[in-house]
Amino acid sequence: MIEQEEAGGKVLYEDADHKFIWLGTESRYRKGVIQTMQYLIIDHGRGTLLDPGGVHLFSRVVASASRYISVDKIDTIFFSHQDPDVSSGIALWLGVTNARVYVSALWTRFLPHFGVVDTARVIPIEDRGGSLSLPSGAALKFVPAHFMHSPGNFCLFDERSRILFTGDIGAAVFGEGDETLFVDDFERHLPLIEGFHTRYIASNAVARKWCSIVSRLSPEMIAPQHGAVYRGEAVGKFLSWLSALRCGVDLADQFFGQ
Amino acid sequence: MIEQEEAGGKVLYEDADHKFIWLGTESRYRKGVIQTMQYLIIDHGRGTLLDPGGVHLFSRVVASASRYISVDKIDTIFFSHQDPDVSSGIALWLGVTNARVYVSALWTRFLPHFGVVDTARVIPIEDRGGSLSLPSGAALKFVPAHFMHSPGNFCLFDERSRILFTGDIGAAVFGEGDETLFVDDFERHLPLIEGFHTRYIASNAVARKWCSIVSRLSPEMIAPQHGAVYRGEAVGKFLSWLSALRCGVDLADQFFGQ
Repeated sequence: MIEQEEAGGKVLYEDADHKFIWLGTESRYRKGVIQTMQYLIIDHGRGTLLDPGGVHLFSRVVASASRYISVDKIDTIFFSHQDPDVSSGIALWLGVTNARVYVSALWTRFLPHFGVVDTARVIPIEDRGGSLSLPSGAALKFVPAHFMHSPGNFCLFDERSRILFTGDIGAAVFGEGDETLFVDDFERHLPLIEGFHTRYIASNAVARKWCSIVSRLSPEMIAPQHGAVYRGEAVGKFLSWLSALRCGVDLADQFFGQ
Repeated sequence: MIEQEEAGGKVLYEDADHKFIWLGTESRYRKGVIQTMQYLIIDHGRGTLLDPGGVHLFSRVVASASRYISVDKIDTIFFSHQDPDVSSGIALWLGVTNARVYVSALWTRFLPHFGVVDTARVIPIEDRGGSLSLPSGAALKFVPAHFMHSPGNFCLFDERSRILFTGDIGAAVFGEGDETLFVDDFERHLPLIEGFHTRYIASNAVARKWCSIVSRLSPEMIAPQHGAVYRGEAVGKFLSWLSALRCGVDLADQFFGQ
């Protein structure tokens, strides 16, 4: 259960120059619609939004972000991949900000299908990733996560806070009213993440590769777009579990059925 | 080059009860935006739309479809997967028709993020596929194509016309003005499809599995959502090439870069 005072958002990291903020949750559980989490990084008064979400979330997310920063100071938007729950609000966000959008080069030609999109403001991230310097000197690192699940997929590592935003990786599906903000007991959380990762991640080979890259970053927290934020021991336990998971194409006979 | 008289659409198969129609192309090439192809099956006066496309295509596709059938007679819409160029127009299509939408069960909870969507009209296709009976007695078969590229992905085989609609599989990227409607010379077409399939399809193991399922169906034509329609010898040549392709996770070291 997420406490009432947390539902409007929570600062996950803060120093004099830099904040990493979880933007809260919907007050009303919508049956049949996957719940999503949005994050905002504020560095020296400039904002970066992570996977701000689809059309139907826009009004809530813009209101929530505006409690922390004036919306016109959001100059960067990061999309982990091309799914509707991640990026279908792109035309609305480009309308209310002057932000530039960063997304895998595999999807830049697809995003205009969401509506009126100024393609000059959509910046392709090349396969091997890269990084973005922030005003304080901190950096955001684009971490390759291809085929987990999207063929062109990135996580974003905020070097200052050491929080890794992972998009769909680490996603949990909660029952109504069961949401928690943090994962503290990994074993108890496991049943909520097992089905998704087994079916959506392309194979163990790629999961293992991603876990090895991420382990080298030593994140303090893993913040996914659905579910709850991993912290403390749960970070390492999640990575160990995922790197051993048989998934996706490894199990193709099961879901192709022939 | 697509001839002027074909740009508005072309009937690919026709008998007394049943038609399979390609709905034409955009007259104006839009730089930086991937081109898409839409198809309409008409059976005993009822319509089925295949991957009708994103928000910005809606006006063209609805006008094109209405040349063949009254829009309110479209009672089925099939989405191969969840990408914006395939399905972001869902709210508009549900608004102008009473159609039911068929899509992989993996995506039914994601589509509402495109906007106002009546989830009761979105029918999940389970992993192993299934089929849909048409008024004439013909059937449409949902053919599993998971991880090619989407984790929850289907092709649609129209048993009457023996045309297989493949979504992204078989996609070609043409230069401006180079579009053709059919692939007759596979070797000449290959450079236009190689990059896409190598990077987006999850692995050779799954490509091989899909090709073996499709070969058993013996399609007359393979009709993708981008590029051109394979017919004659090009069908078998495409399947042989794809089943031998090293792709996706097989080449992960190249695009992860570590």
